[in-house]
Amino acid sequence: MAADARPKARLPNGFADVPADELSARLSMLETLLASYRLYGFAPLETPAIEYLDALGKNLPDEDAPDQGVFALRDDDDQWVALRYDLTAPLARYVAQHHQALPTPFRRYQAGPVWRREKPGPGRFRQFTQCDFDTVGSSSMAVDAEACALLAESLERVGIPRGDYEVRVNDRKVLSGILARSGVTDAGAQLNVLRAVDKLDRLGLDGVRQLLGSGRRDASGDVTAGAGLTDEQVELVLAFVSAGDPSRTAVLDTLTDLVGDDPTGRAGLEELTAIAAALDSMGVGGDVVFDPSVVRGLAYYTGPVFEAALTFETPDEKGRPRQFGSVAGGGRYDDLVRRFTGQDVPACGASVGVDRLLAALRTRRSAEAGMTDSGPVVVTVMDRDRVADYQSMVAELRAAGIRAELYLGTQKFAKQLRYADQRGAPVAVIAGENEFEAGEVQLKDLALGARRAREITDRDEWRADQSAQRTVPRAGLVDGVQEILRRSGG
Amino acid sequence: MAADARPKARLPNGFADVPADELSARLSMLETLLASYRLYGFAPLETPAIEYLDALGKNLPDEDAPDQGVFALRDDDDQWVALRYDLTAPLARYVAQHHQALPTPFRRYQAGPVWRREKPGPGRFRQFTQCDFDTVGSSSMAVDAEACALLAESLERVGIPRGDYEVRVNDRKVLSGILARSGVTDAGAQLNVLRAVDKLDRLGLDGVRQLLGSGRRDASGDVTAGAGLTDEQVELVLAFVSAGDPSRTAVLDTLTDLVGDDPTGRAGLEELTAIAAALDSMGVGGDVVFDPSVVRGLAYYTGPVFEAALTFETPDEKGRPRQFGSVAGGGRYDDLVRRFTGQDVPACGASVGVDRLLAALRTRRSAEAGMTDSGPVVVTVMDRDRVADYQSMVAELRAAGIRAELYLGTQKFAKQLRYADQRGAPVAVIAGENEFEAGEVQLKDLALGARRAREITDRDEWRADQSAQRTVPRAGLVDGVQEILRRSGG
Repeated sequence: MAADARPKARLPNGFADVPADELSARLSMLETLLASYRLYGFAPLETPAIEYLDALGKNLPDEDAPDQGVFALRDDDDQWVALRYDLTAPLARYVAQHHQALPTPFRRYQAGPVWRREKPGPGRFRQFTQCDFDTVGSSSMAVDAEACALLAESLERVGIPRGDYEVRVNDRKVLSGILARSGVTDAGAQLNVLRAVDKLDRLGLDGVRQLLGSGRRDASGDVTAGAGLTDEQVELVLAFVSAGDPSRTAVLDTLTDLVGDDPTGRAGLEELTAIAAALDSMGVGGDVVFDPSVVRGLAYYTGPVFEAALTFETPDEKGRPRQFGSVAGGGRYDDLVRRFTGQDVPACGASVGVDRLLAALRTRRSAEAGMTDSGPVVVTVMDRDRVADYQSMVAELRAAGIRAELYLGTQKFAKQLRYADQRGAPVAVIAGENEFEAGEVQLKDLALGARRAREITDRDEWRADQSAQRTVPRAGLVDGVQEILRRSGG
Repeated sequence: MAADARPKARLPNGFADVPADELSARLSMLETLLASYRLYGFAPLETPAIEYLDALGKNLPDEDAPDQGVFALRDDDDQWVALRYDLTAPLARYVAQHHQALPTPFRRYQAGPVWRREKPGPGRFRQFTQCDFDTVGSSSMAVDAEACALLAESLERVGIPRGDYEVRVNDRKVLSGILARSGVTDAGAQLNVLRAVDKLDRLGLDGVRQLLGSGRRDASGDVTAGAGLTDEQVELVLAFVSAGDPSRTAVLDTLTDLVGDDPTGRAGLEELTAIAAALDSMGVGGDVVFDPSVVRGLAYYTGPVFEAALTFETPDEKGRPRQFGSVAGGGRYDDLVRRFTGQDVPACGASVGVDRLLAALRTRRSAEAGMTDSGPVVVTVMDRDRVADYQSMVAELRAAGIRAELYLGTQKFAKQLRYADQRGAPVAVIAGENEFEAGEVQLKDLALGARRAREITDRDEWRADQSAQRTVPRAGLVDGVQEILRRSGG
C-alpha cells in the first residue's frame, strides 16, 4: 500500500470514543438504574439498532433524501432502514408485532445507544445512551405515579440526594382545557401556546407573555410571531404556568379554579388527582411536585408529562452558577401503537439521559477525591530470566481475585513503574536477584508513592526510596497486596 | 391516517428482538466475561457504532455500491461511513489515533454489537454481540499465553467445567516453514494449503488429502481444484495437521522434526515454545493444548492463532450428537495498526462469540431446572377501592429490596393470577375485604401452585385452594414473602 493511500485514523463528526474511566462510571450508573427498574418489576428487552424507517414513524418526503434526523440506508430489498433515534418507537413496533403473546400490561426496560443525524456541538453527540422503562397496556394513573417514583428512586440510587432533584409533573389536558374554556379551541393555536410555554426556561415569564400575545423581538432584532392571544387569555395561561407549588394539593386547588367546568381540563385534573393519591400511597413526598410549566417538547404525549431535574447549582460554560436542569423525562403516550394496529393502546414511560446525568455527577464530584477507577496490580519484570516466576505471582494474585497483570512491554524497570502509574495501578510488585535469593518480594504502594515514582530514573535510586514500599516474604505476596489495597480503600 | 397507510410492525431481515429471559442470560454472561477480563488487568473502551469506511479497512470498488458485507451510507460531508463489522478494526483506528497518550502496552476490553451485511440464516444474524480483549504494543509470547489462559478462565467462570472445553493453539509460521522446507514457497500456493486445512472439520483427513493433491469431487459431482502438492508434500502437511496431542511437549517434539532448519518454521516453533513456558508458569494445564489443525480463517493473523472449543456433545439440528465446537478465537495480528501509521505495532487478542456461547449453555442446561429468570412479586387488586393499600404493600416490598409491582391492568382477579404466572412471579399477594378486616394478607406461592392457578376461574374456587398459600399478618408481609422466596431458592 502506498504511503498516501493510508487512511487517516479519525472518527466521523459527532461521534466519540469513551475511555476507561468514563466508561466505568457509565456502566456502573447503568447497572444501578437497571437494578431500580427491575426492583419495580420491569423486565429487560433488547431491540436491534436497525429498524424499517416507516416503523420508526419517519416519513420520506423524497425517496433519495431520507428524512434528516436519522441515519438511513437502503436494505437489500430496496426498502429504507435506519438506526433507531430513540427506544420508544422500537417498543411500539415490538408491542404491535407481539401483543398477543405479551402479558398485559407489558412492562419493559431497555438501555442502549440511539443515533440522531443532527448538528453536533459541544456535549451534543450523534450517538448517545438512553435508559428507558415503559408500561404498555394500562391507562391507570398508578402507572404514571409509579414512573415518577421510580425516577426519584433511580436518581437517589445513583447518588443524587433528596433535595438535590425534583420530579416535576404536569398534564397537557389541563392547559388544553383552560385554553378551550377561554375560547382558544383550534389545535394549531393550542400548539402555538405550547411552543411559547416550552420556552419559559430560556425567556422567562415576560418573554413568554410576548410570545403568547403579539410577538417578541429578541436582542438581535429578529421577531418571532406571537400566538395572538388576548390579554385576558395570556394572563390565564401565565396563571396556569405559575401554579407550581411544593404542595401537590395546593396546585390541584389552583388548577381546579382555572379549569372550571371544561371537560378536557377536568379530565386532566382527575388524572393529576389520581397521581397525587397514588404518590401518597407509595409514601412519595415532596420530591415529586406538580409544576404546570413543564411541557416536555411537543411530541407524542397525550396527558401526564413529567421530568426529573437536578436543582443543585453547577458552573455553566461561562462559570456562572446554574441549575443543571432536566436529566430525565417521560409521560403518557396513548397513540404510538395505534400507528400500526389502529387500536388504542395506552402507554406511559420515561427515559433517563445517561450521558447528561453522568456529566452532572462528574461536575459535582470533580472536587471529591477517590473517584478514579483503580488499575490492576502490575508485576514488574526486573530480571528477564525470571519471567516464569513473575507469571506465577500474577497467577496467584488473580486466583485470589486481585486484578493483576505482568508487565508485557520491553521497557526498562523505571519505565515499568511509569507504566504502572499510567494504568492507575495501586501496587507494583518488584523482585530482582536479591529478593529471589532472600525469598522475598517488594511491594510498592503507588497511591502513596505516586509523586516520587515519576522522578525515579534508575534502580539504585528506587532502592533508596523506601517510604512507600515494603518487603514481604514471597509466600506472603497475596496477603501483603491485600493489606495495601485495604489501606488505600481500593 | 388511512388504514392502508399503516406501516407493518416487522423487523428487517436478519435482525431480531431479544426477550427478557434470553437477555438476562446474556447480560449475566457479559458481566462474568468482563469481570474475568478486568481481573487480568484489561480496561474497558467503547468506540461508536459508526466509523469511516476507509478506517474500517473496507475498500469501495464502486462509490455507489459500497462494499458488500457492511452497512454503509454517506455522511453529511459526503464521505462513506459504516457500522462496524467487528471490534478489532475500530481498536486499530483508536490506537493509531491516540498512541502517544496511551500506556504501552495498551490493554483494553470491549463488548458490543457488530453488524454484517451478509446473508442471514437460522442462527445467523446481521447484528450480534462480540466480547473482545486485546493487548497492543507487545510482541511477548506471554501475551498470547495469557490470552489462552484468559479464554480458559472465562469459559469456566460462565459455567463450562474443566474437561468440557479445550483451548487449541497453533502458529501459522510453523506450517509456512514446513511448506517452504518441502519446496512450496509461493504465497498463493501456501494460501491454497491453508484453505484446504481449514476444511478438516467438515471433510476429514481424506477430503483434505484430495484437496491438497489433485482435487476433490463431492457427492453432487462438483469438483474442487486441488493445491497440486506432490504425495510427499501432502503427507508432510497431514503429519503436521495430525500432530495434536494432550501433551504440549509432545507436540513441540513432533513439530521440531517436521520443521527441520527452516528459519520461518523455527521462528514459529520458538513462539510456541515460549507460549508453553508461559502457560507452565501460570499453572495452566491440559485445557490449553497445541493443535496444528487450527487455522482460524484466513484473515489478518500473523503468528500464533487459537480457538476455544466446547468438547461436550449436544444434538445437532438432525438430532445427532455433535461437539458444539468453537465459541471463541483469536491470535496475533502485527499488521493492523500499520495500515494507518506505516509503523509495525505488535498486537494479540481474542473475541468471544457471546451469542454462540449462550446457545451452547442453553442447549446444555435445557434439561436442568430452575434456569428461568424469576419475575416480580405481583400485588393483586381484588378490591379496587383499596388500591392505596396495595400500593403501600408494593412500596414496602421494594424498600426491602424485593422486586415487586402492583397489578396495573383492568382484568378481574383470576386473570390477575394468570398475569402473575405469565410474568414468572414467584409470589402473588392477595387481600380482599376479609383480609383487610382481619389485618392479614394472603401469600400465594406461584412456583408451587403454578399448575393449579391456571385452572382457577373465580374467587371462591381460589379461596378453596389452600395448598400453595398462607395467611400472614399484614405487618408480616415482607417476612412472609422473603420466606417463600428463600424456600423456592429464588
